[in-house]
Amino acid sequence: MIPGLMQTPPLQIIDILKFAATAHPSVEIVSRLVDEPILRSTYANELKRTARAANALAALGVKAGDRVATLAWNTHRHFELFYAVPGMGAVLNTVNPRLFDEQIVFILNHAEAGVLLFDKTFLPLVERLAPQMQTVKHFVMLSAEGVCAAGKVGALCYETLLAAASDDIGWPVVDENAGAMLCYTSGTTGDPKGVLYSHRGVVLHAMASSMNSAFGFDAFDVVMPCSSLFHASAWGLPFAAPMCGCKLALPCEKMDGASLQELIVNEGVTFTGGVPTIWTMYLAYLEQTHQTPGKLKRVVIGGSAVPRAMAETFKKKYGVQVLQIWGMTETAPLGVIATPTPALAALGEEAMDEAIWTRQGRLQFGIELRVVDDDGRDVPWDGESSGALLVRGPWTIRRYYRGANDVADADGWFDTGDIATLDQYGFMRITDRKKDVIKSGGEWISSIDLENVAVACPGVKIAAVIGVPHPKWEERPVLVIEKHDGADLCEQDVLAYLAPHIVKWWTPDAVVFDTVPLTATGKIDKKVLRERYKALLS
Amino acid sequence: MIPGLMQTPPLQIIDILKFAATAHPSVEIVSRLVDEPILRSTYANELKRTARAANALAALGVKAGDRVATLAWNTHRHFELFYAVPGMGAVLNTVNPRLFDEQIVFILNHAEAGVLLFDKTFLPLVERLAPQMQTVKHFVMLSAEGVCAAGKVGALCYETLLAAASDDIGWPVVDENAGAMLCYTSGTTGDPKGVLYSHRGVVLHAMASSMNSAFGFDAFDVVMPCSSLFHASAWGLPFAAPMCGCKLALPCEKMDGASLQELIVNEGVTFTGGVPTIWTMYLAYLEQTHQTPGKLKRVVIGGSAVPRAMAETFKKKYGVQVLQIWGMTETAPLGVIATPTPALAALGEEAMDEAIWTRQGRLQFGIELRVVDDDGRDVPWDGESSGALLVRGPWTIRRYYRGANDVADADGWFDTGDIATLDQYGFMRITDRKKDVIKSGGEWISSIDLENVAVACPGVKIAAVIGVPHPKWEERPVLVIEKHDGADLCEQDVLAYLAPHIVKWWTPDAVVFDTVPLTATGKIDKKVLRERYKALLS
Repeated sequence: MIPGLMQTPPLQIIDILKFAATAHPSVEIVSRLVDEPILRSTYANELKRTARAANALAALGVKAGDRVATLAWNTHRHFELFYAVPGMGAVLNTVNPRLFDEQIVFILNHAEAGVLLFDKTFLPLVERLAPQMQTVKHFVMLSAEGVCAAGKVGALCYETLLAAASDDIGWPVVDENAGAMLCYTSGTTGDPKGVLYSHRGVVLHAMASSMNSAFGFDAFDVVMPCSSLFHASAWGLPFAAPMCGCKLALPCEKMDGASLQELIVNEGVTFTGGVPTIWTMYLAYLEQTHQTPGKLKRVVIGGSAVPRAMAETFKKKYGVQVLQIWGMTETAPLGVIATPTPALAALGEEAMDEAIWTRQGRLQFGIELRVVDDDGRDVPWDGESSGALLVRGPWTIRRYYRGANDVADADGWFDTGDIATLDQYGFMRITDRKKDVIKSGGEWISSIDLENVAVACPGVKIAAVIGVPHPKWEERPVLVIEKHDGADLCEQDVLAYLAPHIVKWWTPDAVVFDTVPLTATGKIDKKVLRERYKALLS
Repeated sequence: MIPGLMQTPPLQIIDILKFAATAHPSVEIVSRLVDEPILRSTYANELKRTARAANALAALGVKAGDRVATLAWNTHRHFELFYAVPGMGAVLNTVNPRLFDEQIVFILNHAEAGVLLFDKTFLPLVERLAPQMQTVKHFVMLSAEGVCAAGKVGALCYETLLAAASDDIGWPVVDENAGAMLCYTSGTTGDPKGVLYSHRGVVLHAMASSMNSAFGFDAFDVVMPCSSLFHASAWGLPFAAPMCGCKLALPCEKMDGASLQELIVNEGVTFTGGVPTIWTMYLAYLEQTHQTPGKLKRVVIGGSAVPRAMAETFKKKYGVQVLQIWGMTETAPLGVIATPTPALAALGEEAMDEAIWTRQGRLQFGIELRVVDDDGRDVPWDGESSGALLVRGPWTIRRYYRGANDVADADGWFDTGDIATLDQYGFMRITDRKKDVIKSGGEWISSIDLENVAVACPGVKIAAVIGVPHPKWEERPVLVIEKHDGADLCEQDVLAYLAPHIVKWWTPDAVVFDTVPLTATGKIDKKVLRERYKALLS
């Protein structure tokens, strides 16, 4: 090989905001805030405020490589920290405030964060946990002067710090492989694990996710991230949107129908995304108030399978396209997204909708997928054969933060822990989590497939299927149902509903009615359910 | 800084084709060929043929780092070499066959190419120049068996080599900064200069140019590159199109209206691009034959300013959007492209069209622009103040091939040699080449602005404005006009036409009627004109 002779500037996160401030200076970022009115800013202004934030943090002693933590909602201030902290060569640790106290404490101590910035909502939480925080020296409340409260921790005021800081800064040149964002995953077992995104990974992810195979942003889009900024960077939207010159509407923590509709209509939101629960509430709100979703064109839904009725309502009633998406903290997070292709379109609109609504999505440039059997051999791409889902690429994890060993193998393949299929159209479907799949008499039953059928049964609010130890078959499925308020439903009704939709040997051995416990990230906590019902079939 | 913990696979060109073959295996690549019927292939098949090509080249002795040259049109075989040669860690040197003999010889000897692959068209050229080629050991004709001719150089047959080669290959891991593509620029002075694109630069360029701010490709697009693959990789379309799963239609050298229309209609072309001359012929063909351009939606036009009438005809008569573009071999080549923005749209459709048709385009993520005065200070972004256009970024040149010094400064800024303005919308307009600007009494006159007015004068086929030495004013403009056949036009007619469109002191001191000489890349050869008329005003 001979060396190429092009320039080799590092890919740096701050360059995204510099670009937006230069090419799209007057494009707005509109933000709800805790106990403050909606704020309107622009990318030009945000670059200046980001410089102030970096100078203010430097004055608090933050240096390159240091970890700076947040407990914060989707606001413009949190957005600024997404650029200020990596911009100065430090690492932003976005902590999920919905975790258990001990997990939050574990994360802050494990990350060794020196500064913690938090929204006013979390003052009681911060006051409660502060005595256990071993490294946090400075607390900063993300509020305006006059709204701020110092509390027992003597919190500084973010806007006071910014007002005192200069907007003149020489952003350092940062190694593109340096750590930039530190996001912890909270499985249902063990301590949270940190995924340390690099500048390079974040920038490449933003470029890839902006393309038409994924989000397909253009400068006319108005993007409203309704997944949390603390949860794998909200699909990286705070990076992709300014890269494409999109206006940003940030909902803070207000995910109720009325609040979302206000932003959607007033700000002309064209693109949003979040977990299905939010959209169930939003559609109910539209129905009740006889409104329509303004200029909204696309809703990206991840976290769990899209209910079919939701996708149909969005499309047929409101002309909004619902796109499934799959990813994980370890993939920064984009894995696949279900956008149309000519090969699918050739099957006709109904078949294409079916594919797009029932599969997590299609292959994207920059993240490779494999589905392998127990011997590590690729299964056929037939949409039927399932196996362990492996991924690799420049925004896929190599090693957890402070981990002793790589979690990707020598060829870069990372085992996602998901069971999936791939089909001839390059679409991937998650059939289960490896630990949730039900092993019945040597065969596998997909808990997710069963849940997807059961949740469509009238009266069912949440359906959870778990494998329960069985004396003869090793495991058999048990269906746990949380009913809608006032729903009248018994085991026979449910089994009768399931019968035409599933093969007979998948029929649950028991249907129980119970409240379904959720994890801090809103997923069904099957570990708790498995423990609760472990003796049901013995 | 602390190291991030994501994977760091190199960005490699071959991964683009691997992705297309995996995610879009049945998407077609359709190619015209010299003396052969139209050929239909797919990305899955192209990856196999690319492996065969690499194995065949290895059998000829090509090793990583070696240069492999082509004299070839826009065909699937040339496309294969865009992947096979960089894929094996070697460098593809795409030579412009329209250059003068001595330039072609210079390039091949300077690049030290060991293998030359060429289309049948160029056999006489190759035979004529072979005795002067100091390093070429193997000649390969890019034809099918039966069509091939060995000629005086004993050329091997590409398809014979491929048929004998295995499609099994372990693509090597290539350093992403290694040289991949070597493109020579031919200015009007001095020897051609080589620009050595890296894998990293090409992949990032393909990602950026795929975004909606630029080409905005999706999997439903059918892309027909009508600029030459040997000319700065035809805007990188052979890389961006497969990355987005677009079908490719390759016109070989057939750029006449009938041939283009056949591909456009039969293959469903949605996107094409090339120099204005091609589209003048194409629009005339549509007019004469009363046809419409099928599914064509966008035509990207670069190389010189888009004639207003052409843009209006495309839009108003055929619903096709014309987008200007600017770039150079040294920028791989995307610099800016004139796509809509909300800020422009707010001005109304006419004003937006005006902006998009009269400016080269807007800022793109990944390439930074500055316009500076003689003291190196940024001029105001007011659309009026002009200065030297500087660029930098990961697909901008650092140094010419075998050059002794960097041509970008310590901060990465490369002086393009163009004079330009930037406006508040982030749109750049080229007002002149630095060497063509006319210095009259301490003020600058833009030769391009004058030409754009003059070319709209009825009867004018080509208008060229040059600065001619003047005893009092240093230089004064002279307008050289090549008339349409049979046009009746005199100096007074032209001056009368210009008067209402220009400030008085820009009025040319002389209008002469002559044939206008063009360079090998189709640009007006002002060097020749300046020499021819140097004494006109003395």
